[in-house]
Amino acid sequence: MGVLVVGSVALDSIETPFGSAKNALGGSATYIAAAASYFTAPIRLVGVVGGDFPKSGMEFLESRGIDLDGLEVVKEGKTFHWAGKYHYDLNNRDTLATHLNVFEKFNPKIPEKYKKSRYVCLGNIDPVLQRRVLEQIDKPRLVICDTMNFWIEGKNAELKKTLELIDVIVLNDSEARLLSREPNLIKAARVIRAMGPNIVIIKKGEHGAMLITEQTIFTAPAYPMENIFDPTGAGDTFAGGFVGWLGKTDDFSEENLKRAVIYGSAMASFCVEKFSVEGLADLTYLQVQDRFRAFRELSRFDGD
Amino acid sequence: MGVLVVGSVALDSIETPFGSAKNALGGSATYIAAAASYFTAPIRLVGVVGGDFPKSGMEFLESRGIDLDGLEVVKEGKTFHWAGKYHYDLNNRDTLATHLNVFEKFNPKIPEKYKKSRYVCLGNIDPVLQRRVLEQIDKPRLVICDTMNFWIEGKNAELKKTLELIDVIVLNDSEARLLSREPNLIKAARVIRAMGPNIVIIKKGEHGAMLITEQTIFTAPAYPMENIFDPTGAGDTFAGGFVGWLGKTDDFSEENLKRAVIYGSAMASFCVEKFSVEGLADLTYLQVQDRFRAFRELSRFDGD
Repeated sequence: MGVLVVGSVALDSIETPFGSAKNALGGSATYIAAAASYFTAPIRLVGVVGGDFPKSGMEFLESRGIDLDGLEVVKEGKTFHWAGKYHYDLNNRDTLATHLNVFEKFNPKIPEKYKKSRYVCLGNIDPVLQRRVLEQIDKPRLVICDTMNFWIEGKNAELKKTLELIDVIVLNDSEARLLSREPNLIKAARVIRAMGPNIVIIKKGEHGAMLITEQTIFTAPAYPMENIFDPTGAGDTFAGGFVGWLGKTDDFSEENLKRAVIYGSAMASFCVEKFSVEGLADLTYLQVQDRFRAFRELSRFDGD
Repeated sequence: MGVLVVGSVALDSIETPFGSAKNALGGSATYIAAAASYFTAPIRLVGVVGGDFPKSGMEFLESRGIDLDGLEVVKEGKTFHWAGKYHYDLNNRDTLATHLNVFEKFNPKIPEKYKKSRYVCLGNIDPVLQRRVLEQIDKPRLVICDTMNFWIEGKNAELKKTLELIDVIVLNDSEARLLSREPNLIKAARVIRAMGPNIVIIKKGEHGAMLITEQTIFTAPAYPMENIFDPTGAGDTFAGGFVGWLGKTDDFSEENLKRAVIYGSAMASFCVEKFSVEGLADLTYLQVQDRFRAFRELSRFDGD
């Protein structure tokens, strides 16, 4: 089944201990859509870029078969630009610059043909805009959203209104603690579930991810990477793999949600192996399946 | 098979957000021995206490069937005392006091009947003393040791000499990074393996543990605890469960090492549910097995 992805499309300037890139393709919608495109179609993207958005960016998205009719191009404007520098251990980063540019006035307009999308993945944007997207969609089967500290602190009441409409929230451990005001992650997930989302996924970076539903707690390991090249987009890529697998299978059983978490983790592991979106450029589905199996080997044990 | 445990036996004064305890039974050898005692026998303890060591402490160790012939009592001295306070999220603690007392002059003397112990677990003590223990043992089958930042920084050369004699090192993530001078944990484990231990176990607290051997990387989840009462001793308890299971099964296959990591994790999860050693006081083996199975449920997924 198709997936509608709404979020930022950006140009990122990234410094890591291993190198740097200027104006590389980035943005939450980009990573989500690219990851989801390995599992299902159509992937529909709603976002905005400026007249400076390079042809190579469009070509990458098209090469992944992503429907770009919802990608607005503001010719006279500039594309959202983020610059960041990762510390030597890659777990922390400094934001050097954030120029919202055309993204500042982003007001997602959902093309008519997208309005019956069954799966909706809302990247990390203003919760008011996330809600505005949902108002335009005709009864989606599953809505997934991401958020961040900026909205948890700055637009808490709006975020909570949005969360009432959400099925799955994907956030990292510090965001979960901040949103719930609860240091224990299991309790935090329960507090967040009471805000609306039936399914809470807490990403823990190098420590993997947790899936918490009413009945299940599932822990997914992180893929043991010796060489993380660029962590940018890993969280969005996780969400894209997760929603892509669900879109492919259309099965919300606990067992299949677990598989979706592993596929999300697998895609994120490919993402961080290269700069920008390069790690998601030309994988085969066999590679994705092999990585899924590697995750099983990593955490499997027998005996009683 | 029997396990020889060498380390501290202490009285701990602990403050957590949930309560406090004064002069509660603690120490690395105490936790290791208590956890291992659920799996195999005899468990032999070598340590030292003062004349103030309470009868209740002896009774607890005896109740777990631990052989105390190697526990020296210095009547005119005082028992090692540690006082600490945990922060609200329990991941960090401040040491309020460390009084080594009789432990300052601890010089482990291995009783004759202990010298043929096949399994040796060296708690976190001076690496020179760890080596002195090994010099007294007649070809053990497996030697496990713990260490800490204090020795990594203060007695690095001695620690490295000790590591050459070790089969399994158990340490936490920050210690692994410090010892290897490598932020990436997979690389860190490889660097540490080159120092001697064939098997490296990295404990990650609320994020579980990793087992790294020549061929295998295995990730164990942490048990999702909503109520961690007192984290003191969790790492030692992990080591005790690990060595206890290996002592019981006498099987060093990769599959069995994974099980040992899970049994270690299971025992640690019982430990932190109560104050001091109370969580290890009267479990049944059925409870331990149930917890082992709960770990499998937590990380199991199917599909391909």
